[in-house]
Amino acid sequence: WRETMPIDPTADLEITAFEWVPSFAQGQVRDLRPRWACEDYGLPYKVRLISALERPAWYFDEQPWGQVPFVRDGEVGIFESGATLIHVAEKAGALPPVGSQERARVLSWLLAAFNSVEPYVMEMVNCTVFSRKEEWAQLRRPSLVEALDGRLDRLESALGDDEWLAGEFSIADIAMTTILRAQPDPALMERHPVLAAYVERATARPAFQRALAAQLAPFPEHAPSKQKEGA
Amino acid sequence: WRETMPIDPTADLEITAFEWVPSFAQGQVRDLRPRWACEDYGLPYKVRLISALERPAWYFDEQPWGQVPFVRDGEVGIFESGATLIHVAEKAGALPPVGSQERARVLSWLLAAFNSVEPYVMEMVNCTVFSRKEEWAQLRRPSLVEALDGRLDRLESALGDDEWLAGEFSIADIAMTTILRAQPDPALMERHPVLAAYVERATARPAFQRALAAQLAPFPEHAPSKQKEGA
Repeated sequence: WRETMPIDPTADLEITAFEWVPSFAQGQVRDLRPRWACEDYGLPYKVRLISALERPAWYFDEQPWGQVPFVRDGEVGIFESGATLIHVAEKAGALPPVGSQERARVLSWLLAAFNSVEPYVMEMVNCTVFSRKEEWAQLRRPSLVEALDGRLDRLESALGDDEWLAGEFSIADIAMTTILRAQPDPALMERHPVLAAYVERATARPAFQRALAAQLAPFPEHAPSKQKEGA
Repeated sequence: WRETMPIDPTADLEITAFEWVPSFAQGQVRDLRPRWACEDYGLPYKVRLISALERPAWYFDEQPWGQVPFVRDGEVGIFESGATLIHVAEKAGALPPVGSQERARVLSWLLAAFNSVEPYVMEMVNCTVFSRKEEWAQLRRPSLVEALDGRLDRLESALGDDEWLAGEFSIADIAMTTILRAQPDPALMERHPVLAAYVERATARPAFQRALAAQLAPFPEHAPSKQKEGA
């Protein structure tokens, strides 16, 4: 139920991830975010795997919702992927100076991703995956699509011809593009080609590709049927 | 449609707020958060009022969703209430040092408030207020209450006997308690007396009371009927 996967076993920074998740979640679990930031900033990290199906009771003392990622960095423990992104960026010296407009832009867009875009995407995933057979989910969908569409219109205007949300590539882009690629309605992205290109540009980064591969790597050997065969 | 209310007209820091909102939103608008932080840290601020009913087109260049607060601090512009809280805390020297466990706790709980609690509360407000006549909203409500109930159980466990979420009173408490007091189902708070006491403790702070009074102050003279009378 617990092991350390040595991406760099001497690293101070440890990211807790799931050993296996169902196929719809593979490549979408939120440990992708601090992994990506570490890869982009060249910061070594190691991984601790836990079971998503039987989350250990002690884990809730570290992460109040039992979710991943949890990041441990020496004596410091951080939960919520947004907070882990800030921690990794600060450790890497990649956050602009306190009081600067550059820092304000990064933090504004980071919070925008987590509080003004992801809540709609989470409810879309809920309607499309978890609650898809519920009557409310089918009735809810049109107004939810409309609300998210409006947000994406505004986001597309704000991005405009820029490459990234806050000048240089930043943790705000890691947050926003992992959220946009989790959005389950392809038509929404087709209506926002600027955002589709933005996600494509971000996920073409080698750092993203390495982070994605690292998340996926342990899944085959921990798939439930295999576990049963081995038991 | 635009004016500056001199809470301290010489302040560098300007918070944009609405001149009037409907009664259900009065005292709940998110400019309350940076106002409260300024009051708690003794940081002077001034206020710029805009119309919520007819949001000026130029405002969307500052705040991509047209919402409040927007904070301007000299040349620096910040949007998203969570980002404004970080900015105010950093300006006041009230955020613990980079790399410390204390900072990690503040930022983890701040992001938890915005990404793991508020999305449920926003959808509760949507079901209870904005979409209350929709069939989906009535069908959605039980599973939403259950999900938020689960989050509040975990939050209550995590807070335990502590006074605040991250040691000293912090911006994480400003975020979490303004979210909890916006939650529209009294039964949910009755089932979580530890959290009810936490909200009561936070909102008893004179800084909160001053921030709340300051948000409410301009509403009477800007109420739509009065505007029409004056026109």
